[in-house]
Amino acid sequence: MQNILSFLTNYDLGSVISLIQATQEAAGVEILAAKSLFTANNVWMMLCIALVFIMHLGFASVEAGFTQAKNTVNILFKNTLTPVIGMVTYAAWGFALMYPGEFGGLIGFSSENWSTIWLAPGTADVSNGYAEGGYTFWTDFLYQAMFAATCATIVSGAVAERMKLGAYLTFTLFFVSIVYPIIGSWKWGGGFLDEMGFVDFAGSTLVHSVGGWGALVGIWLLGPRLGKYNNGKSKDFAGSSVPLATIGVFLLWLGWFGFNGGSVLSADPGMVSLVLVTTTLGACGGAIGGHLGGKIIMKRMDFGMVLNGVLAGLVGVTAGADIITPLEALFIGFIAGVLVVISVVSIDRYKLDDCVGAVSVHLTCGIWGTLATGIFGEGASFLTQLYGVLICGAAAVAGSFIIFKVLQLTMGLRVSEEHEIEGLDSHEHGIRGYTILVED
Amino acid sequence: MQNILSFLTNYDLGSVISLIQATQEAAGVEILAAKSLFTANNVWMMLCIALVFIMHLGFASVEAGFTQAKNTVNILFKNTLTPVIGMVTYAAWGFALMYPGEFGGLIGFSSENWSTIWLAPGTADVSNGYAEGGYTFWTDFLYQAMFAATCATIVSGAVAERMKLGAYLTFTLFFVSIVYPIIGSWKWGGGFLDEMGFVDFAGSTLVHSVGGWGALVGIWLLGPRLGKYNNGKSKDFAGSSVPLATIGVFLLWLGWFGFNGGSVLSADPGMVSLVLVTTTLGACGGAIGGHLGGKIIMKRMDFGMVLNGVLAGLVGVTAGADIITPLEALFIGFIAGVLVVISVVSIDRYKLDDCVGAVSVHLTCGIWGTLATGIFGEGASFLTQLYGVLICGAAAVAGSFIIFKVLQLTMGLRVSEEHEIEGLDSHEHGIRGYTILVED
Amino acid sequence: MQNILSFLTNYDLGSVISLIQATQEAAGVEILAAKSLFTANNVWMMLCIALVFIMHLGFASVEAGFTQAKNTVNILFKNTLTPVIGMVTYAAWGFALMYPGEFGGLIGFSSENWSTIWLAPGTADVSNGYAEGGYTFWTDFLYQAMFAATCATIVSGAVAERMKLGAYLTFTLFFVSIVYPIIGSWKWGGGFLDEMGFVDFAGSTLVHSVGGWGALVGIWLLGPRLGKYNNGKSKDFAGSSVPLATIGVFLLWLGWFGFNGGSVLSADPGMVSLVLVTTTLGACGGAIGGHLGGKIIMKRMDFGMVLNGVLAGLVGVTAGADIITPLEALFIGFIAGVLVVISVVSIDRYKLDDCVGAVSVHLTCGIWGTLATGIFGEGASFLTQLYGVLICGAAAVAGSFIIFKVLQLTMGLRVSEEHEIEGLDSHEHGIRGYTILVED
Repeated sequence: MQNILSFLTNYDLGSVISLIQATQEAAGVEILAAKSLFTANNVWMMLCIALVFIMHLGFASVEAGFTQAKNTVNILFKNTLTPVIGMVTYAAWGFALMYPGEFGGLIGFSSENWSTIWLAPGTADVSNGYAEGGYTFWTDFLYQAMFAATCATIVSGAVAERMKLGAYLTFTLFFVSIVYPIIGSWKWGGGFLDEMGFVDFAGSTLVHSVGGWGALVGIWLLGPRLGKYNNGKSKDFAGSSVPLATIGVFLLWLGWFGFNGGSVLSADPGMVSLVLVTTTLGACGGAIGGHLGGKIIMKRMDFGMVLNGVLAGLVGVTAGADIITPLEALFIGFIAGVLVVISVVSIDRYKLDDCVGAVSVHLTCGIWGTLATGIFGEGASFLTQLYGVLICGAAAVAGSFIIFKVLQLTMGLRVSEEHEIEGLDSHEHGIRGYTILVED
Repeated sequence: MQNILSFLTNYDLGSVISLIQATQEAAGVEILAAKSLFTANNVWMMLCIALVFIMHLGFASVEAGFTQAKNTVNILFKNTLTPVIGMVTYAAWGFALMYPGEFGGLIGFSSENWSTIWLAPGTADVSNGYAEGGYTFWTDFLYQAMFAATCATIVSGAVAERMKLGAYLTFTLFFVSIVYPIIGSWKWGGGFLDEMGFVDFAGSTLVHSVGGWGALVGIWLLGPRLGKYNNGKSKDFAGSSVPLATIGVFLLWLGWFGFNGGSVLSADPGMVSLVLVTTTLGACGGAIGGHLGGKIIMKRMDFGMVLNGVLAGLVGVTAGADIITPLEALFIGFIAGVLVVISVVSIDRYKLDDCVGAVSVHLTCGIWGTLATGIFGEGASFLTQLYGVLICGAAAVAGSFIIFKVLQLTMGLRVSEEHEIEGLDSHEHGIRGYTILVED
Repeated sequence: MQNILSFLTNYDLGSVISLIQATQEAAGVEILAAKSLFTANNVWMMLCIALVFIMHLGFASVEAGFTQAKNTVNILFKNTLTPVIGMVTYAAWGFALMYPGEFGGLIGFSSENWSTIWLAPGTADVSNGYAEGGYTFWTDFLYQAMFAATCATIVSGAVAERMKLGAYLTFTLFFVSIVYPIIGSWKWGGGFLDEMGFVDFAGSTLVHSVGGWGALVGIWLLGPRLGKYNNGKSKDFAGSSVPLATIGVFLLWLGWFGFNGGSVLSADPGMVSLVLVTTTLGACGGAIGGHLGGKIIMKRMDFGMVLNGVLAGLVGVTAGADIITPLEALFIGFIAGVLVVISVVSIDRYKLDDCVGAVSVHLTCGIWGTLATGIFGEGASFLTQLYGVLICGAAAVAGSFIIFKVLQLTMGLRVSEEHEIEGLDSHEHGIRGYTILVED
């Protein structure tokens, strides 16, 4: 009893009682601490939503900057409606297709996801959100919806200046709401590629090469712009505004912090900040690679290659940004920057007319990034990566070919020669992109 | 005593003592957890400050893009000084007017808010901030200051190309620092509209329709631009740069994530992420509504209507973004997009010359959004919403009429015919907005 | 024993036991709460990384907007490669130079920082990150790398339109990777200026005046643009696009929220939100000062002075943003805005040709801001501030002079007269910045 007496001497029972009360409060503290971490994670993911959203302005700016002034309104029209179509159809069924929950691994549909969006009371998801860890259902949906829309946008630049607006918008509707989410479900929805160990952190393959294949099929079926290939020469059509294209590239780089940084799916400090570093060094490597590639291959200080090099580097590190070192990121980006120059020259030789270099940036470097992850990334296998590239490529080509072909046979893909020569803006939209001159 | 003996057998007193010490630490943990949540909330609100700030660049870009090249510097001058005037006067007395604390419900002034800004040592507020929950005093002030300045900016686009710069800046000073905060206090400051149950989440009425009424009164008193209405026809003056207007609309959409998302006044994960979804789907609905409206009513792929449709949808869902479902947001946005087309055509018929469609976007759709919240929003009443729309409208019209009229009678509102025809840039500013041509 | 009996009556031993278990959990809660705060801090710092990054687009836009259309591609080329060079060299050795840990106070090198970047496994740093408090190693590195690159960019605008691209890029490489980090280490790396009590919160001196001195030395060695000073008159060369310059200034203002807000080095709610307020009011004061200064000194509504006034105000409050009151921030910004007008006029009188006013904004107002902190800032001494300004200025002048002089004697600094007259774009890059006119 001596112990008890000394206990009572040192600590009166009031302490013990208040201690018990404090412990009851402690349960509240635990919830508070968990809520706090959840809130911080969710804030990061919402920031990433905003960052990926701004990529749509980035794409619009790059594409309008790199294409001719007579088609500026047309390209902006496309790039404004592309995220709109992307997000509405992703809400309508794309999200449910891409994240089907348990499924056979090839194609599925989550009626739960569908009904939460369209039928559930607005905030009912919060508790579900807590349970799953990182963020709420709505954050999850919106982040993925912003992502989906980027895939569709890749096509718009390549096929610019000669494709019918209605045909493009219809293509986008089916591509973004069927082709993209089904292929995406194979990896990110827990499908057969995921089970095989295929690695694609933020979508070098699932977003960029899928979009790039769509772009390639598009420019192949459409044919080149009038006057592009004459007498065995390839004519350069001057883009309307290099500053606009530069704004676009910087906004895409900015947005990529959310594209890659948000793909961690939490605000995990070490992981996300590493991803920002590899993303940045990938972009830097790409700029250097594009600059040197342009200097050696094209014999000039080619600014377009620096800009496309930045994007190439970003696409290149997207597949493995979380499992490569900064040095590897710099190297992968550099090779991507060189590759984009080689790819632009090669594609041009096949008389495939890609107005903005989208195929070279997103397809060529999307493949490179996915394979590079198999070479450098911890825990990734080169052969599995190659298999994923091929199987996703086959599906994307098949899907986009079917959509483009049906549209070609029905509404037609290409504007009239007259419209193309005079520019799409005056014919389809009735205004010009720039009216800079002050009338005297 | 058997219990006590078994207690002493299982747990020696050292445990109990360390337990008591641990509990003393637990009090520290509770503070840490609370600080952590507070920090996360405050980070979100500071992000929203940055997002609402970027709306000012959005407005500047939209307005400069949609107006003639000969007045570009003038409109940019206005749009740069508008947030400056807005924020300085909001610090000077606007914030104290808008959040008066306890007051009669019609007009009040918080000398505490005023003295904290101008007299208190910089960081003394931190503890107050904790006490109130979501964020610090400075975050609160700056977020609301950014908000206030958006209201003033709405006017600048409508009255562009013919209003005297000095008169505009003086109008802005009084409008943003007196009319806006007094009307705002009626709801957000806890005044009579708040007591009645009027619902206006992020300001379809308090910001957008108030600014829209100011714009309407302005263009009515100013009269149309020279040559706008001749022989019963309405002439379209080509805007200087569609890409610039597009950049503006995307930046406004981006900024709206902070405008609506920050109006939750915390980083509450479920609520904020729902608001981002309804905001986005509102914008998408607006784009589709503007596109279809333009196609049916104007018989062309009118890109201006798509852009204004996006803004219309955003304004439309602003009043109820936290209490409507995604489906309702899409619908409200769609109707807003159609309404903006009808409104632009109707206003033009009354020979009210709104250079950028500001009245249609902010007033028409601000009213629609507020009423739609009465129809769809949980817990909102249509009649109370209608009452709020009317009473705020009456006050905004009265306030802006008085300011404009006094200015008209004193310094005059309108530039000389010569200046208007030659453009405001060369006369008032001595430079041109664009000097693109490379001299030969 | 009565107490113990009543204790056992009220609380059975099961409670005590579960209480002990709860306390064991409490240790977990403490870690959770600490992780949560760490995550929130790190999210803020990552947001600041994104914000400072966007300043590079801001600089590119301002400089391309304020310089002639015939040199647009050239300036964009520089401004795209400047952050690339800045970030790669900062990773390579700049970060290790700037944060050497324990060192003599004049120059040091942290092999630990160097090896963590290049040799350490990617995420190994997370635990280190926790230990230090605010954020991870990678966040720290990337934030500082973004910062470093802004210093270099300041030079590019001043020396535009006549400097060889290769010479500029080489200068940047040495300036950003040697001059900037060594001077920075004197204060931020814990060197002798830090020990003396020199105060420079976010770099009015360490970033802005260092960059400004580099710019001044550059324009002095380069000489003015051809035709700038003829017959005792200074010719204004019209910038290509005022909207582009405006976009740039708004983006810089936006980015400054991260530049100053991130310099708190945590998300501390009270401190960071105060800094955002002083930053904003500094910018507002600068705009007003530039506007009034332009009106009085230049006798016109000079928009360039409003824009440079905003930047001047931002530079002005950068040294003391955390220790001045909102009123002081407004005043310091206002004086900076007036100073920038006086400085532009004065520098021009000495026939120092600064294409964009970079010296006036960054050097003049950087000095003013540093000294103003000695006047108004709590705990700062005017004489120590003056000493810091002089010593950093001497080092920056010496460093940039040596680099520029070596380049002048080897590769040459200046393009040929022919290239300068015809524009750098057609000669070095083979494309034009704007091709707005639709061919007939």
